[in-house]
Amino acid sequence: MKNLKGAALLGQSGGPTSVINASAAGVFTEALKQENITEVYGAVHGIRGILNEEFYDMGQEDLDELLRLKNTPSSSIGSVRYKLKNPKKDASEYDRLLEVFRKYNIRYFFYNGGNDSMDTCNKISKYFKNAGWDCNVMGVPKTIDNDLNITDHSPGYGSAAKYVATSFMELYQDAMVYDIPQVTIVEVMGRNAGWLVAASALASYKGAGPDLTYLPEVAFDTEEFLEDLKAVLDAKGKAIVAISEGVKTKEGKYLPELFGELKTDAFGHAQLGGAAQALADEVKNHFDLKVRAIEFSLLQRSAAHLASKVDVKEAFEVGKRAVKAAVTGATDRMIGFERVSSNPYKIKYKRIPLTKAANTEQKVPLEWIKPRGQGLTQEFIDYALPLIQGDDKAKLEDGLPRFAKLKKVRVAKK
Amino acid sequence: MKNLKGAALLGQSGGPTSVINASAAGVFTEALKQENITEVYGAVHGIRGILNEEFYDMGQEDLDELLRLKNTPSSSIGSVRYKLKNPKKDASEYDRLLEVFRKYNIRYFFYNGGNDSMDTCNKISKYFKNAGWDCNVMGVPKTIDNDLNITDHSPGYGSAAKYVATSFMELYQDAMVYDIPQVTIVEVMGRNAGWLVAASALASYKGAGPDLTYLPEVAFDTEEFLEDLKAVLDAKGKAIVAISEGVKTKEGKYLPELFGELKTDAFGHAQLGGAAQALADEVKNHFDLKVRAIEFSLLQRSAAHLASKVDVKEAFEVGKRAVKAAVTGATDRMIGFERVSSNPYKIKYKRIPLTKAANTEQKVPLEWIKPRGQGLTQEFIDYALPLIQGDDKAKLEDGLPRFAKLKKVRVAKK
Repeated sequence: MKNLKGAALLGQSGGPTSVINASAAGVFTEALKQENITEVYGAVHGIRGILNEEFYDMGQEDLDELLRLKNTPSSSIGSVRYKLKNPKKDASEYDRLLEVFRKYNIRYFFYNGGNDSMDTCNKISKYFKNAGWDCNVMGVPKTIDNDLNITDHSPGYGSAAKYVATSFMELYQDAMVYDIPQVTIVEVMGRNAGWLVAASALASYKGAGPDLTYLPEVAFDTEEFLEDLKAVLDAKGKAIVAISEGVKTKEGKYLPELFGELKTDAFGHAQLGGAAQALADEVKNHFDLKVRAIEFSLLQRSAAHLASKVDVKEAFEVGKRAVKAAVTGATDRMIGFERVSSNPYKIKYKRIPLTKAANTEQKVPLEWIKPRGQGLTQEFIDYALPLIQGDDKAKLEDGLPRFAKLKKVRVAKK
Repeated sequence: MKNLKGAALLGQSGGPTSVINASAAGVFTEALKQENITEVYGAVHGIRGILNEEFYDMGQEDLDELLRLKNTPSSSIGSVRYKLKNPKKDASEYDRLLEVFRKYNIRYFFYNGGNDSMDTCNKISKYFKNAGWDCNVMGVPKTIDNDLNITDHSPGYGSAAKYVATSFMELYQDAMVYDIPQVTIVEVMGRNAGWLVAASALASYKGAGPDLTYLPEVAFDTEEFLEDLKAVLDAKGKAIVAISEGVKTKEGKYLPELFGELKTDAFGHAQLGGAAQALADEVKNHFDLKVRAIEFSLLQRSAAHLASKVDVKEAFEVGKRAVKAAVTGATDRMIGFERVSSNPYKIKYKRIPLTKAANTEQKVPLEWIKPRGQGLTQEFIDYALPLIQGDDKAKLEDGLPRFAKLKKVRVAKK
């Protein structure tokens, strides 16, 4: 093993979670302890910051504030949605990265993100190797969608799942309050994988969940839905529906497209959100009652005050272990979890080759999804329940969370 | 003072809050202790339950579960939106109420609600008095809107305000994360009074609040808004906007009406909600950037996991004191608060004549609202900050809140 001595760099990428900063805290605090790490940098907005030579000098931060990152939601040093080109077609960005890494003598690179970010990590790692630049590259997983493959689950999911389950329990109390028929439709994030909407089953497990639940893994059938909704309303007079933003018909149509118009972003990609409202409008066409659409929106990925203690701990640990692995020679790996047992909950940390983690999706097993929107099986409950245990949130100051305040000292450009 | 001996009855009315059940816990536990109270009843869905002789026998409940009501959101015995007719025009409902009260020997009546409910309370009290039925009637205030008059504030507001301020702080972290221009528009409840959207100023006080804030107290001017938004975007590249669902133009148009179509309910009343989406659509017509609309919807009134300790305590206390007042002869009063000082926070409980509390609205003083959406003054911060202090939430069981489980034993109809 070569004794690499040089700077360490962390980049945050993709959509925020409640605990992405907890992983950053793990990386920064551990990196600052390591003898072979001469400087600890944070990339300003991920890959884009690296391409622009924009770094924060994390060595200037107070340890107390770095530890407060554990309970500060979102991405404190800035995130980015940026996909590098295929190096076989256009290597100019990789050459630029290499130039920057050489210039700042960056020998340890940590990238915190989901599928795309692990792919980025993988490509950079391979490119550097071929170019003869010794740099240990480690992926640090995060995603509320829980769709990263090979690992049992991903940091970020437990806290988002706890938010979803708790909020469904609270909404259930609210939705049951009047003696009039009503339908409440709640939209949860998840484009292709339904892990997060499935977390509403944890509320059902506590007796206060949705009556009907729709995951992107199963094609949505409007006729069946209206039939099943009618059955619930006939029996109870009220209904709560949980729906993933990514639900599609068997023809591949998202609900806003099916019942109205689908919004697209600047690149012409389908912009999700609005599934609950679209479905609510359709329900109003068939039933004469009060219908309300609710979207958890950004709240589900930023509500750090509801973070799961297990999730915060694991997110921190994953960051710390990525550094420990890198300084002892590991590269081209992502830290992940292997489930040893669910009750009692026990996991093993493992180092997964990035090639395996990149660009594949872990979906909810079809056999865990009950037919016709009837929720999730006990297997899912056993899987998810350990991940939402315990509370761990920022100390209150004036009754409000005291989040980390970083100095954000910029590294002088070389 | 007459020594009234008989049953006590509580009804819950209007929209839920995180602490309406805390007041119920105060009423029930105190009433169960009183010698002159022979039975303790809960009305099933407020006034409608009374008209139908539908009561729960609260004496059958375990004290532990009654105390868990302190941290259980919404209205556990069922609420109702029902306005009694004017007794001068049609007294039939009042006669029916009187009949039921006589039949069950109800001598103490507690009604927990907002403006309308205090009016209901007031009318019932006067009608019974004229009819010679001795019954002490006490109003127990609650409203997330904080628009009840005469009292310094109302139970329910502090917890909702804490939810709003905390959520803005978290959304701020999320909204700042990418290096692209974007506008986030967040809609908060409040039809005529802007107390709740004003609570976003508490997030600003902690350095993480909205850039522009709109209350129903001030007429909305689209041109000014677009100008001010442009200035924020020019300066920061991003903007967070807080808007009350009840915001109107000087012509009296709600935003969904101004920029699209206003939804109406079964009675043809304007159904609020959708202001953020309507404004987001308008912003997209003027700026080429990412715009996201978020509605706190029912979450802001049911998120008991974020309840303010001060609010829970006061809500419970108000219920308890209503019973103590009634059994010592008070009637036709609502328990309210008088602020003695804000720092340190100190209040006095007072008994306010229902006539004064009913059907009037307390709005945010105009001098506390800065011009052109610039937020609230320090006076508002000083007023609101003490109300959101401390945490008090349900114990966790399996990582999720353990809400009260009532037996809900029905009283046999006489």
